[in-house]
Amino acid sequence: MCSSPNGDADTNGVQEMVAVETRQNGMNGSRARNGTAHHHGANGHSFGTQHHNPYAPRASDFLNNVCNFKIIESTLREGEQFANSFFDTDTKIAIAKALDNFGVEYLELTSPAASEQSRRDCEAICKLGLKAKILTHIRCHMDDARIAVETGVDGVDVVIGTSSFLREFSHGKDMSYITKIAIEVINFVKSKGIEVRFSTEDSFRSDLVDLLSIYQTVDKIGVDRVGIADTVGCANPRQVYELVRTLRGVVGCDIEIHLHNDTGMAIANAYTALEAGATHIDTSVLGIGERVGITPLGGLVACLYAANPEYVKSKYNLGMLREIENLVAEAVEVNVPFSNPITGYVAFTHKAGIHAKAILNNPSTYEILKPEDFGLTRYVSIGHRLTGWNAVKSRVEQLGLQLSDDEVKDATAKIKELADVRTQSMDDVDSLLRVYHSGIQSGALEVGQKETLDRLLREHRATQLGTA
Amino acid sequence: MCSSPNGDADTNGVQEMVAVETRQNGMNGSRARNGTAHHHGANGHSFGTQHHNPYAPRASDFLNNVCNFKIIESTLREGEQFANSFFDTDTKIAIAKALDNFGVEYLELTSPAASEQSRRDCEAICKLGLKAKILTHIRCHMDDARIAVETGVDGVDVVIGTSSFLREFSHGKDMSYITKIAIEVINFVKSKGIEVRFSTEDSFRSDLVDLLSIYQTVDKIGVDRVGIADTVGCANPRQVYELVRTLRGVVGCDIEIHLHNDTGMAIANAYTALEAGATHIDTSVLGIGERVGITPLGGLVACLYAANPEYVKSKYNLGMLREIENLVAEAVEVNVPFSNPITGYVAFTHKAGIHAKAILNNPSTYEILKPEDFGLTRYVSIGHRLTGWNAVKSRVEQLGLQLSDDEVKDATAKIKELADVRTQSMDDVDSLLRVYHSGIQSGALEVGQKETLDRLLREHRATQLGTA
Repeated sequence: MCSSPNGDADTNGVQEMVAVETRQNGMNGSRARNGTAHHHGANGHSFGTQHHNPYAPRASDFLNNVCNFKIIESTLREGEQFANSFFDTDTKIAIAKALDNFGVEYLELTSPAASEQSRRDCEAICKLGLKAKILTHIRCHMDDARIAVETGVDGVDVVIGTSSFLREFSHGKDMSYITKIAIEVINFVKSKGIEVRFSTEDSFRSDLVDLLSIYQTVDKIGVDRVGIADTVGCANPRQVYELVRTLRGVVGCDIEIHLHNDTGMAIANAYTALEAGATHIDTSVLGIGERVGITPLGGLVACLYAANPEYVKSKYNLGMLREIENLVAEAVEVNVPFSNPITGYVAFTHKAGIHAKAILNNPSTYEILKPEDFGLTRYVSIGHRLTGWNAVKSRVEQLGLQLSDDEVKDATAKIKELADVRTQSMDDVDSLLRVYHSGIQSGALEVGQKETLDRLLREHRATQLGTA
Repeated sequence: MCSSPNGDADTNGVQEMVAVETRQNGMNGSRARNGTAHHHGANGHSFGTQHHNPYAPRASDFLNNVCNFKIIESTLREGEQFANSFFDTDTKIAIAKALDNFGVEYLELTSPAASEQSRRDCEAICKLGLKAKILTHIRCHMDDARIAVETGVDGVDVVIGTSSFLREFSHGKDMSYITKIAIEVINFVKSKGIEVRFSTEDSFRSDLVDLLSIYQTVDKIGVDRVGIADTVGCANPRQVYELVRTLRGVVGCDIEIHLHNDTGMAIANAYTALEAGATHIDTSVLGIGERVGITPLGGLVACLYAANPEYVKSKYNLGMLREIENLVAEAVEVNVPFSNPITGYVAFTHKAGIHAKAILNNPSTYEILKPEDFGLTRYVSIGHRLTGWNAVKSRVEQLGLQLSDDEVKDATAKIKELADVRTQSMDDVDSLLRVYHSGIQSGALEVGQKETLDRLLREHRATQLGTA
């Protein structure tokens, strides 16, 4: 069950809505590729007759695609623009196969116009017979389009800059020129019987009227998908929501979004775009791309899993995530960040006493992601000064020792005292608990006898050194 | 200027609004600590007389605190709960001083009830005479409160779990008990003349009526700040916006938010909380904390700088960010993630040809953060197969060489050909350009003479090996 605020847009709900929509906008239903139609009128106009019923569904209830989306995995395109990237053919094929096994719906590849080897690699990946559809990403230019359609791809992603910044300092073209060339390229790609997407670049700093105008134009000539790109990473979630939702009311085709991560908001922006009706999200493994990159595949999976674990588990082979991240991290010679969602090495480590206590009672208290769904395990850290007696009690039970609550509290006080000097390893903690337990059992120790405990611990260490 | 959607809430605007608000709700104006009053009535009710004027300001225009917030830096509390953390006294003091120099408004420290050394360290930091206010974070318990108020702190942050999960599996208390003990602890801390904050834990999975009820109660008895905590990292931006905005209509005091990063949305959630009227954001350096941690200081600074560079530059010593991150990374033995906003080593590296061209014309085309404001520099990478002739031309000019555009394009084709085999270093590229240039100058080379260029490059390499 999708727990997002508009989470009632489950599959059945969407299909019901489609029936309503297609009656009113039959033209669009046939063209949408994502299995839903949230087309002209989804911005509320088509619900005019229900306007006075306060209990009628709100348009926004039908826009939400948090439980109905596709991933366009761009490690082999955007990821190639990462500073450290140099993928040889074998590496590209290994990454493509791994992502295909994981279950992403699309793989996007570098333009075959970029270099000779780029073209050959694109052709080689098209011939692998993967389940994922293969796309290549080109400038909005007939020369590039002619090369792209010959490679065997399932679709072509076309992009051109539309912000005043890019129009002035990058390609120098005006909107009427952009529209003309866009129509020419789209019609050409369509004539080859393959998918075509048209995206603007730097969309959030483009003139809104220019944007909507060109998207409407390309929608009318039958583009499969329009793309919004936060090329500079300047957007925030509410801006993303507003732009996607506005666009959702203007075009009938699918909506893709590409989000850079310069301010660390690319995961949340992707999630919010789905809430607003986007259908396709661009990702790369570990987010690699220009500068600090784009929405990372693992982070996107984490937030969508949190919203609807069953749906995400049914779509993707989650146990492969760590292996894919390690493959790419090795290829581009970076470390998986310690703080990476899901696979960061501390992602399932619990430390503070109150956290550890609750986690041991019920993992859902402090975990929204189940480590076992990703082939990972939980770890409760207890040998530090923030530890608590409940966590220690759980370890006592794991070791098969019998101690009363007062005895566990007494042992915990000693762990805290030692950990104030240096962090205690699990071995240190276990030794202390065993010494404490045997002291109690033999009658040599009682609760509160600090000096006796210190002597028993010293004797234990001496014995260990003797036998070491 | 703040470029957020509700960005017109600049300092003057807020003060004007305060005048209006305090006339209507005089009671609250005197107690708010954040310099603004967005109190009872800010949810729209107090604008009743303007209801029929569509051009009247919307309530949301006055809630936005993106340009008016305070940071509660919790590296020395939440950060101590990071798996790898063990801060000795000297390290704690070094971190506290660095954060104080950076300019954070508050430092939050581990509870003095956690261990003896925690208590001594808390007292030591209070005696440093920092500009930042010192807070300590305690369970909602009189025993902890009595120890805390004796340490010399400027304020106490009180927390208790309110979700059904935590009530059942953590402390086992009901809401009436929680309310009773909260009132007792808050009144006790207030009686000592220091600040007090009351926060729930796992707020997003707590019953909304329970939450609002306890916040309203503690607001009435004069708490300085209430806190919302996404303890498990389950919230998304629109949920954060709705909860903060609802709370903004219920309490007159300041609102703090503490956001875990399990799904990678903690930066965006913090930004959105400020849009909804939160006044204080919890951070830690690199986000360290339980599991993958909380909103990172650097990431929060990045998105707030993007919204309003001048305001953020005036508040914080941005040139220190990298040094602080390195200090903490070393203390907890992690690497700064390659993809870290601002300080990740690729954050200002531009690679693709079209990016490089535009960046060289005007950095704002692809940069919303100015590296020089953080004491960092930009790098344009050109020795790879995605390079473009405009980027190469810029390098030709930097080297002081004279080549026509056709000659630069010809040299670029050679760079791409070589880079298809292996990435070319800047030295490699420079050598090639110098050889190309001298070939043109001497008349030995013309555009398009591939074999001649290959021979000149071979001869150059042979000379180099000879002289090496």
